[in-house]
Amino acid sequence: MVSRYVTLLDSHPTHLDRLMVQTPALSLSTYTEEARAEIDAALERYTAFETECPDVLREAIRHSLLAPCKRLRPLLVLMAAEACGCDRGAAIPAACAVEMIHTYSLIHDDLPAMDDDDLRRGRPTCHAKYGEATAILAGDALLTEAFRVLANDIAPAHVAARCCVELAEAAGASGMVGGQAADLAAEFQGGDVQDLEAIHRRKTGAMFRVSLRLGALVAKAADEQLVALDTYGRKLGLAFQITDDLLDVRGDEHAMGKRIGKDADHGKLTFPSLLGIEESQQRAASLIEEACSALTVFESSASQLEALACHIVERNR
Amino acid sequence: MVSRYVTLLDSHPTHLDRLMVQTPALSLSTYTEEARAEIDAALERYTAFETECPDVLREAIRHSLLAPCKRLRPLLVLMAAEACGCDRGAAIPAACAVEMIHTYSLIHDDLPAMDDDDLRRGRPTCHAKYGEATAILAGDALLTEAFRVLANDIAPAHVAARCCVELAEAAGASGMVGGQAADLAAEFQGGDVQDLEAIHRRKTGAMFRVSLRLGALVAKAADEQLVALDTYGRKLGLAFQITDDLLDVRGDEHAMGKRIGKDADHGKLTFPSLLGIEESQQRAASLIEEACSALTVFESSASQLEALACHIVERNR
Repeated sequence: MVSRYVTLLDSHPTHLDRLMVQTPALSLSTYTEEARAEIDAALERYTAFETECPDVLREAIRHSLLAPCKRLRPLLVLMAAEACGCDRGAAIPAACAVEMIHTYSLIHDDLPAMDDDDLRRGRPTCHAKYGEATAILAGDALLTEAFRVLANDIAPAHVAARCCVELAEAAGASGMVGGQAADLAAEFQGGDVQDLEAIHRRKTGAMFRVSLRLGALVAKAADEQLVALDTYGRKLGLAFQITDDLLDVRGDEHAMGKRIGKDADHGKLTFPSLLGIEESQQRAASLIEEACSALTVFESSASQLEALACHIVERNR
Repeated sequence: MVSRYVTLLDSHPTHLDRLMVQTPALSLSTYTEEARAEIDAALERYTAFETECPDVLREAIRHSLLAPCKRLRPLLVLMAAEACGCDRGAAIPAACAVEMIHTYSLIHDDLPAMDDDDLRRGRPTCHAKYGEATAILAGDALLTEAFRVLANDIAPAHVAARCCVELAEAAGASGMVGGQAADLAAEFQGGDVQDLEAIHRRKTGAMFRVSLRLGALVAKAADEQLVALDTYGRKLGLAFQITDDLLDVRGDEHAMGKRIGKDADHGKLTFPSLLGIEESQQRAASLIEEACSALTVFESSASQLEALACHIVERNR
């Protein structure tokens, strides 16, 4: 990765004191542990559904949503809000909304009619445990609740409305859902690296980008900060997907908490199948370097985003 | 039905001129024909998805959404807005959002894992024509688009945010989705009239009520108007469901545009099976009378809502 701290030091030796401040106050693992606890507590509260929700539906929703996992997208929301100078507490509802959308998409994508998976986040998939009908409804309920949370708990109202619009655009027919439809179609039709990047721009990239944008919107970010986060998110999303494809070839099923080797079995387009393993790894590393370069506008406030980007290509799950 | 025009005339003979104004300027059929054309045109625009949406997904969405049908819920939005003194044009986005939610719920409820239907709105169901995976995604995309439309096209922003919250509450785990989950559970467990009413309060009633509320919110309705519309919506929703159950026993499949007789085949709880046909009919008629009584607060401006209520129990589809 580009070390912009060293670059700053070289060109501005008088900035040494400032550099000390720029060193992340918390390690990535400590930060993510604390932030995940806040996210999990909020998700727990949001899905208590104390009135009128049938027990089996509540259980199915919580089975999938509250399973231990990385919480990558909500972490991006919180880190972006902090990078833009906002307390992360104000962005917790947006973080939860993004995680609800992500989890609903996993529940529906795992259905027999789609990717037909039986293991996710180290647990049986929602339909494997509760049946297909309940899994479809659990996904629908999470998708709906995401917008309730944003519209109700983000302030002021014009920011809440803007967050709803951006999340819907990222998650809908021109975003994530469109990407999944294109991905299913590509299984039968094949394609090249451009096709694969176009699929992942929608399927993974759109949700990465909107996670960062929601955090920035809550923090009333300046335009140049939004542009920087867009670039970071686009590159990070693609690097994440390449790593995901690599882990599907070489990963550890237990660590991943989901079945591996399924992409090849289904004849799916993947980066390793199109570029080979080594070039895929190089591509992911370059993207992370470019993603971090985009963060220079934030100086020290984006240190967690930078650390997270490096972690993403080094992860084993 | 209660004829409040006659009542007004009896007690205030000098109100004769006013009574003439209170007579609906348009017949229900002319009104609904014009309003439906506006709704259909807006739904057509909203689902053009000119960029980034795979063709098959766009076609599946439009196949289900643009099929000729009653547009009952969006008509309720527009009529409520007009009853509260607002031009119906301002409520068109809310009307479209409600119809998108309703259509997504039909697509998902028709899936093999749920009610397993092959005919809807006189066309093959979405999964029968495009496959299960695409039907699941088409439903997801419509659900998502409903919130985009509300958040983007309703003004001011605090009304847009409030509309998103109320629609999510009505459609989600404690509303429509919860009702469908309870309905599926009841197939196996049986129940009485109270259970059945509780299911339909969520499954049908919540969407009827929120349709009226969104129209009223857009029109900045007074509290007493909202209360009146709540009562009207609750009674109308139940009357509609009783009539729907009756049509499933005695209706015309061609006119209905969907399979009939399926409730009995699936051992579903229905009003005719619990109360008998005659008592079900009487119950529906009483509910409509009560629904119309709640509208007196509006004087003449709710004449279309009153006419629609009467039509609902007399319909054949």
